[in-house]
Amino acid sequence: MSSPNSAASNDGPLRYEATGVDYTLIDPLKVAAQRAAASTASQLQQHGMHEIESSRGESAYVVDAGPFLIASIVECLGTKALVADEMHRLTGRIHYGAIAQDTLAMAVNDLITVGATPLVVQAYWAAGGSEWFGDAARAAALVQGWREACERCGVAWGGGETPALAGIVEAGRIDLAAACTGIVNPKTRLSLGDALRAGDRIVLLASSGIHANGLSLARSVATRLPEGYLTPLDDGSLYGEALLAPTVLYAPVMAALHAADIVPHYCANITGHGWRKLLRHPGDFGYRIDVVPPVPPVLDFIRTQAGHDAAEAYGTLNMGAGFALFVAASQADAVVDLARACGVPAWNAGEVGPGPKRLSVPSLGIEWDASELQLR
Amino acid sequence: MSSPNSAASNDGPLRYEATGVDYTLIDPLKVAAQRAAASTASQLQQHGMHEIESSRGESAYVVDAGPFLIASIVECLGTKALVADEMHRLTGRIHYGAIAQDTLAMAVNDLITVGATPLVVQAYWAAGGSEWFGDAARAAALVQGWREACERCGVAWGGGETPALAGIVEAGRIDLAAACTGIVNPKTRLSLGDALRAGDRIVLLASSGIHANGLSLARSVATRLPEGYLTPLDDGSLYGEALLAPTVLYAPVMAALHAADIVPHYCANITGHGWRKLLRHPGDFGYRIDVVPPVPPVLDFIRTQAGHDAAEAYGTLNMGAGFALFVAASQADAVVDLARACGVPAWNAGEVGPGPKRLSVPSLGIEWDASELQLR
Repeated sequence: MSSPNSAASNDGPLRYEATGVDYTLIDPLKVAAQRAAASTASQLQQHGMHEIESSRGESAYVVDAGPFLIASIVECLGTKALVADEMHRLTGRIHYGAIAQDTLAMAVNDLITVGATPLVVQAYWAAGGSEWFGDAARAAALVQGWREACERCGVAWGGGETPALAGIVEAGRIDLAAACTGIVNPKTRLSLGDALRAGDRIVLLASSGIHANGLSLARSVATRLPEGYLTPLDDGSLYGEALLAPTVLYAPVMAALHAADIVPHYCANITGHGWRKLLRHPGDFGYRIDVVPPVPPVLDFIRTQAGHDAAEAYGTLNMGAGFALFVAASQADAVVDLARACGVPAWNAGEVGPGPKRLSVPSLGIEWDASELQLR
Repeated sequence: MSSPNSAASNDGPLRYEATGVDYTLIDPLKVAAQRAAASTASQLQQHGMHEIESSRGESAYVVDAGPFLIASIVECLGTKALVADEMHRLTGRIHYGAIAQDTLAMAVNDLITVGATPLVVQAYWAAGGSEWFGDAARAAALVQGWREACERCGVAWGGGETPALAGIVEAGRIDLAAACTGIVNPKTRLSLGDALRAGDRIVLLASSGIHANGLSLARSVATRLPEGYLTPLDDGSLYGEALLAPTVLYAPVMAALHAADIVPHYCANITGHGWRKLLRHPGDFGYRIDVVPPVPPVLDFIRTQAGHDAAEAYGTLNMGAGFALFVAASQADAVVDLARACGVPAWNAGEVGPGPKRLSVPSLGIEWDASELQLR
C-alpha cells in the first residue's frame, strides 16, 4: 500500500490511491456498517412500512410509506473547499457560492437516481471555529449559492446545522454536507434498475468539469506545478478556477423527464471512480459507449499532468459525463432533447447489451469487466 | 468579547462563551441562512405541497405531503468525541458505542419534538483520514452502537457517508452527524405548539448526564483539574467516564404516548442553553417549575468546578432534565407513568401560565424573562 499523501513528488504517474484516500482501511468499516444497517430494516414494520430492499447500496435509500415512497440521503462535499480556500488566498476571489452548489449537487444528484423528486434539503456546515462564520462576504456567498441551488432543484431548504467544531474540524476550514429527502410518486417512477434490459440506450449528460470527485488527485497535481493553481489552461482559465466550476444540478432534467412521462430504467450519478459507475447496476449486462463526450479542459489537463492512460482517467474522473440515464431505445432521442432544453448537453451515447458484465468504450480502448473496482 | 479558548486558567468562574464558541460570529450567518431558507419554501408548490410554516426555527422542518407530514433534520454531535478520544488515550477503553448513541440522539430527539415518528436515519461519519477507520475495535463499536440506537428508536438505518477528509477534519478525529426523516401521521399529531395553553402541565424527562451539549465547558473544566478526566466524582466514577454516559433516546417515550393517543401540546429537547429551552415556544406564556429533578453527579461537579450559580448552570446544562413535554393537565400523570414504563424517570414538574413570557423556578431562585438568550 502507498501511504496516504505520499505522492507529492514529481516522479511518475499519480495514482488516486496515493493521493490521500486509502479505501482498504475504509472498506471493512463500510461493509460492517452496511450489514448492520440492513439488519435494521425490520424496524419499519412497526410503522406499517417496509424498505425497498434493492435500494440498499444504491445512491439513495427508499422506504415504501404507503401512498408513495420516501427517499433520503446524506452526502459530503469532500475536499473541494480546500481548493476554494487556496484560490481565495491566491486571488482574493470567493468561490463559496459554487461550493454551495457542489455540496447540494452531491446529495440531490444522488437522490434523483432512484426516481425521487427532491423536496427538502438540510445544510450541514461544520466549521473549525466560530471565526469561519465571521468572514461576512464568504458566509453570504455560501448562503446565496445554497439558496440558488435549492431553487434550481425545486427543493425547500429546511434548515440545518452550523456548528463550530474547534478540535475536530481544522481551524479556518469547513466540513460541508447536505441531507436530502424526497418522494417517488407515483411509485412506478422508481428507477432502481428492475426494468433495465438489453437493447436499452445509455444517454450521457455533460459535466461542467471535475464536479466534486477526484479532488485529492487534482490537489496533488497542483503541488507538481510550478505555478500551482494559477497555471493557465489552454483555454486561458486558471487551473484552480477551472476546478471550481460548480457541479451540474441534474434535478431539472429529471423533472423534465417526469413531466414527459419518461421513466429511466436506471440512472448512475458519475462521481467517484468515474465511468466505472456505469457498471453499477447489479445485473449481468454489458455496456458499450460509442459516443464519447468532449472532455472539459481541466480534466484533460489533469489527465496529462497525472500521466494517466484512458482507463485510469475514465476510471477516476467523470471526463465530461456527469450523469448516465439508461432508457428505452425508443425514448433515447427524446431524453437527449429534454436534457438539452434544460441547458444540459446530452448524447445518445451507448447501448446496454447482454452479459457478462463489462464496459466497452472502443474508441478509448477501454474494456472493463466485473472484476473492476468495487463500486457500491 | 472573550476570545475563544481563553478560559483554561484556574481563576474565576468559567463562562460558556469563553469556552470556544462565539455566537456573535455565528448568529449573523444563521439569521441570513434562516431568511434565505424561508424564501425557498415556495419551491414546494410545484410538487403540490407546502411547508408547515411554524416549523421554521423549530427543531425539525415539516412539510405537508398530502396524506401525512414529512419531517426532516440534520444534527451534529459536537465535540463530545474529543472526550472519548482522550479517555481512550488515558484508559484504553473505547466509548464509541456511546458516542454513536449520542449522535443519533441529537437528530432523533429533535425530530420527535414536532410529533414525528422517526423512520430513517443516515449516518455522517467524516474522519480526518482513512486511518481512523483502520482501528477495527473502535470502528466496530461505532457501528454496533449506531445499530442498537436505531433499534431502540424504531428507525431503519438507511446508509450514509464515511468520507476521509484529511486537511478538513483533523488527523485522528471524526466529525459525526445524523440526518433523520420521519412522518407525522395522522397530521393531528403535529406538536408545534398551537395547542399550548395556560393550565397545561410540564413533564420533565430525566437526562443521563451532560448528553452532548455543554461539552466545551466540560472540557475546559477538565483542563483546570490536576487529574483531568481521571478525577473521581463523589459516586466513584471518573469525570471523563461520567461525561460519556450516552444521551437518553426519548423516541420510545413518544411512541408510547402515540400508542396511548396522547398528543403533547409542545415539546422541548433540552440541549444547548439548558433550561432556557423551556422558553422556546414563540407564544406569550409564563412557565413555573416546582419539582426540580435530581442533578446527575457529573453536572453537579461541573457546576461546582466552573463556579456557576443556579441561573448560569441551568441556563447552560440540562441539569437532569433532558426533554420537556407540555401536556394537558388531565394527561400529565399518565405521561409520567408511560415514560417511567419506558425506563425514563419523569416528573409532573410544572405549569404553563399566562404571559408575559418568563420562566420561574422558585426553589432555585431562577426568574428569566423573554430577554434571556436568543434560543431559536
